[in-house]
Formats: sequence, C-alpha cells, structure tokens
Amino acid sequence: MADTIIRFGIIGAADIARKVSRAIALAPNATLSAIGSRSLEKASKFASDNGFSPHVKIYGSYEAVLDDPEIDAVYVPLPTSLHLRWAVLAAEKKKHLLLEKPVALNVAEFDKILEACEANGVQFMDGTMWMHNPRTAKMKEFLSDADKFGQLKAVNSVFSFAADSDFLANDIRVKPDLDGLGALGDAGWYCIRSILFAANYELPKRVIALPNPVLNELGVILSCGCSLLWEDGKVATFHCSFLSNLTMDVTAIGTNGTLHLNDFIIPYVEKEAYFSTCSKSGFNDLVTGWQPLPSKHIVPTDLPQEAHMVREFSHLVKEIKLNGSKPEKKWPTITRKTQLVLDAVKASLDRGEPVELGQ
Amino acid sequence: MADTIIRFGIIGAADIARKVSRAIALAPNATLSAIGSRSLEKASKFASDNGFSPHVKIYGSYEAVLDDPEIDAVYVPLPTSLHLRWAVLAAEKKKHLLLEKPVALNVAEFDKILEACEANGVQFMDGTMWMHNPRTAKMKEFLSDADKFGQLKAVNSVFSFAADSDFLANDIRVKPDLDGLGALGDAGWYCIRSILFAANYELPKRVIALPNPVLNELGVILSCGCSLLWEDGKVATFHCSFLSNLTMDVTAIGTNGTLHLNDFIIPYVEKEAYFSTCSKSGFNDLVTGWQPLPSKHIVPTDLPQEAHMVREFSHLVKEIKLNGSKPEKKWPTITRKTQLVLDAVKASLDRGEPVELGQ
Repeated sequence: MADTIIRFGIIGAADIARKVSRAIALAPNATLSAIGSRSLEKASKFASDNGFSPHVKIYGSYEAVLDDPEIDAVYVPLPTSLHLRWAVLAAEKKKHLLLEKPVALNVAEFDKILEACEANGVQFMDGTMWMHNPRTAKMKEFLSDADKFGQLKAVNSVFSFAADSDFLANDIRVKPDLDGLGALGDAGWYCIRSILFAANYELPKRVIALPNPVLNELGVILSCGCSLLWEDGKVATFHCSFLSNLTMDVTAIGTNGTLHLNDFIIPYVEKEAYFSTCSKSGFNDLVTGWQPLPSKHIVPTDLPQEAHMVREFSHLVKEIKLNGSKPEKKWPTITRKTQLVLDAVKASLDRGEPVELGQ
Repeated sequence: MADTIIRFGIIGAADIARKVSRAIALAPNATLSAIGSRSLEKASKFASDNGFSPHVKIYGSYEAVLDDPEIDAVYVPLPTSLHLRWAVLAAEKKKHLLLEKPVALNVAEFDKILEACEANGVQFMDGTMWMHNPRTAKMKEFLSDADKFGQLKAVNSVFSFAADSDFLANDIRVKPDLDGLGALGDAGWYCIRSILFAANYELPKRVIALPNPVLNELGVILSCGCSLLWEDGKVATFHCSFLSNLTMDVTAIGTNGTLHLNDFIIPYVEKEAYFSTCSKSGFNDLVTGWQPLPSKHIVPTDLPQEAHMVREFSHLVKEIKLNGSKPEKKWPTITRKTQLVLDAVKASLDRGEPVELGQ
C-alpha cells in the first residue's frame, strides 16, 4: 500500500515558512495543499516567491485554511502571542498541529493548546528541527552509553547570532506584543532543549539566571544567560543572544566522555552533520599530549532535518488517520518541559533570584 | 655573543617537575643545574628516573639549592601551602622564580611573594604553560581584531578530568593542608586565566559561584562552577572538576566572531596546536547551512609549550643578569589578577552569594 500523503496547510507567510514549505515538498509522505495569510495578496506573493505548485490553494485568511476539509495538518509559524488563539482553533478544527517555537508565552497557555489537541485527538509537535536530524539520534546513542559517556555532569549550550539593525528595530522577536520572550524564547529555546536532550529530559531542580540580561527599550530580552542545577549535582549553563556572532554550541561532559558540536541547530552543511566525542581521555606519560585523541563522527543527512521533522510528524498523523492510533505523547511532553524551564528562566530574570522548578 | 644559559634549580620532586625538567633541557637558553628534595635519596631517585645528566647537582634539601651560588633561577612545584615560605626565601636568595600554579592560597600571600621578588630584583613567572604556546599569540591576534572578532561578549571555559580513586584519596590537590584550593586552584586556575586572556585581562566586576560545589569529606573542592560579570555586560562562565572526563574548552564570542578550542591547556599533540574561528557567520538563503564556514587554524609548535615558557623566562632573567634590566611586570600582573578572581570565586562559594571584585 502506498504511503498516505498528509496534506498540509500553512497559516502565516513567515520567513521560516519558506524553509518548511520546501521541507513539506521534500518529505515523501507530505504535500503542501494550502497557504493562508492575512490577505489574498500576501498569500499569493508568498506562493509565487517560493515557486509553489499551482494546485496549492491560496487563502486570504487563516480561518479558511482551518475550514478546508482537504487539509490534514497545519504548520503555524505565527508570532508567539497569536499561538494560543490559532493553535487551539486549529485543534478544534481537527487539524494536526506543527507549531513553531516558542510554542507559547508561558506553560499555562501551552497547556490550553495541549488540552485542545488532546480533546480533539490531534498530533502536536513543535518546530525544533534539529531534534529530527539523524545526527541527533547518533548523539543520543553516545550520551546513553554508560561506558563511553557515563553519567552526565555538565552541559554548556550557546545560541547567539548578530542581528542587524533592521532586525533589532522591526523583527517580531523584539516586539513585546509579538514574540515577547525575545532572545530567550527564540535562541534560548534551543539552548534549553539541547540541555534537556543531554539530560534525558530530566527537569532541573533550580534555575539561576545571570542578573544582567540585555533588554531593548521595550523590555524585550536581547541577550541573557542562565545556570540550571539538578538534584544529583548536574549543572548546565546557557547563553542566548541577538547581539553576538552566530554560535551554536553544545558541550556535554560525562564521567567517562565528552560530546562537542558547534552547529547543533543548523548544521554547517545540509548533506551531513558532525559531532565530536572523547571517551576516557587521558594523557601520554609526560602529559604533553592526549590519548586517545577525540573522534569526529560524520552522519549523512539523506533529507534535510526539517524534512525529517515533517516526515516524522506526517507518519504520526497517518497512524492516527488510518489506523486509529493515539497521538504520540513524546513530542508534546518534551515541548512542555522546554517551556517549563523557559518560564522558570524568565521568572528568575524578572525576580533577580533563583527559581525552583515545579511540575 | 652566545646566548647566556640560565642555570635552573628545581625544589621538589613533584610529578610535574618531570615535564618541566625536560623543558629546561629543550630550551636553548636554559640548563638544569640542580635538583633538591626533602631527602638526598628522593632527589637521586628523581634524577635517575628522569635521566638527568651526571652534572646536575643532587641536594637533600630545598635550602641547599637556594644557597648554591651557581643557580640563577628556581622552579618551584611544591604544594601551594608551601609557596609563601619557599618562594619568598628563593627571592631573598636572589633566585629568579618560576612558580607553579596556583601560586598562593590567596592574593595576600601572593603579594608577599611579589614584594620579595620586587625587593630582590628577581623575575617572577607562574607555570601556566599554555600561555607560551605559539598558538596563544595567534589566538590573541584574532581576539584583538576589531573587524574579525569585534567586541567580546561571552566566554565559556571548562577544565575537567576524571581523577582516579588513588588521586581522590591521596593527591596533594585533595588535601586541605597542601593544595587546599582543590579543583578550583588546580583546574579552575586555567579556566580563570583563559577567561582573563579572552577579556584582555580586564577584571570582572562580580563573580557568582554556582551554589552546588562538590566537596570531599575534608571540605576540599572537587568540582565547581562560576559566572563572571563585567561592567560592560560581558559574561563568562566556567566549570572545573576532578570528577568528569578530560575536557579543556575555551569558547570566546564577540560581536563579529567566535573562537573555539577544546585542548587549550595541553594541545592534543605536541608538534602543533589548532583553534577554530568564525567571522561574520551567517546562513545561506534558505537558512539550511552556514556561510562562511568556520576556519581551522593549525599553529606549528617548534618547541613544546613548556619549553617556550622556560625560554621566555630565561630570556627575561638574562636581560636582568647581563643588561641590568628591570624584571618584566607583565607576568606577575597577570598572575595576580588570576589569583584575585580565584579568591573572589572561593569567597562566593564560601558565602553562597555574589562577590564584588576589589583591586
């Protein structure tokens, strides 16, 4: 039996939707069926700018996409402040939901989105693409290896990029009423996710934000840092910023091994992705060199990571649609933990003190 | 005129002295003239174990080395708690001083050592070898480049190694009466130095230690972490530990560039050392890959970094001895700043609160 093709609608002609519409085209089990924007003109321009096939329907509103019975799933790249309204409505219209990060302004909002998804039996997944790169599974193998990596002790994660003056004046990520979580919601989301990934999704007990975030004149975070502490003594630190050169680091240090990569969110090249590991590293007799030397692992990427994401999501949707499966809880669970930590970091920044994590 | 050869004595048959005695042999302007230990037997064994030339004098006490008029300079690898006594005495005996790190238990002690050096006109240098690797000067060029690197925004440094059970039971670095600063004094010294190096030796305004150091049963630090904040918003974090796999990272992020290396203290191999840089990094049009890609720089190491250290130190000693130069203040100034920050981190750990840095 041929693989069922999941029909996607996109609501919002955001820049990121260019990349995801290509991913929908590349994924073997997905197809782009509709694009909706606030005006027909905007939607048409987006479709022609991105070379959409003529059979992609063009809608002048988000509602029209959600009302189209020939759409199985929607990709929602709208500003964060609009997620609650449109994600809930999408779920109510029985559309499976691929939602851009940060998924909500806080976990209370996200829980409403999740409730709507659960009540309507639709799959939820957030748009954190690197999770789906084949490299990520290989890294997980290493981090799970009790001999080669051992017990996790420390993680450091960085995501920064040097936003230009236009971004810093006009991007939705610097507007309190749009992506009000700023660099924390955008770049920090990835750092927090990578830390949770390394910690096998065990939540930290406490977060301690550095007391010197950089804010713009409207109070939106442009740069901040934080430490996370676990009950067992594990520690993590991250730094996220719109104000320094593009950097995407994850370092995870265990009792027996170390993992390094410097392009965790978007691999340097699309066709393959690398990571470096050391295990049981030591020195030569005079302590003038390492042995063993670190190993570099190259993982071929048959499809771009965002196409892997669409494929995985579409597979889950197909299982629900054809086989009556329940939505996979793994993805919303990881999303919720990310948002929980993000909320705690925001609270620690706002209050200027450590914040204990609840569930 | 042939280069004057500086005659070294070593006081203390420490393990690290094996590497430094080889460096003295390799440096073209230095020679090993004497080794002194607490007993003649220990000194003789160290000399024969390390294949010392028969003309290296063997002494059964530290004093005998300091009293030998044919010794210009001493290398002191004794436990930190003995530094004050022996470094001051060495200076008083007009011996130039190459002192292992951490140089003292606190900056007040170190100031007494410095006063003795200044009063007696002897050169001071600490034993932080990586500072002298030719790679370090190349990294400084990059970090000083206003176009390629820009203004420093964030630094992360890690030095950890997995100490074995013998180390954790018996090494001087886990004994409160010997190297009482534990992992902070040993591994943390390097992290702090690398952060100051990246910050062009500008002292941070405040240090905030993570509130969960791991201590042994005698209260010695086995693992800890800290954040450092500067007046201008720069931030740095470090993690130092005896309890996880060997890791030696420095990441420095500027407005325009990023520097990475993972073997900053002891290069992977002795003959060359690498670092990676990115400048003005961005993405391709669809944000599916980086451009430009990072560059890897390989710096050949004509002499091991510790021999570079001995050569630089011996050069300064020769200038004093032959040309009546004043001791070079650059090295003790950097040392003192490192100790100042280390003291502040220790105070922050002890008090469980942020500590403002004085001068």
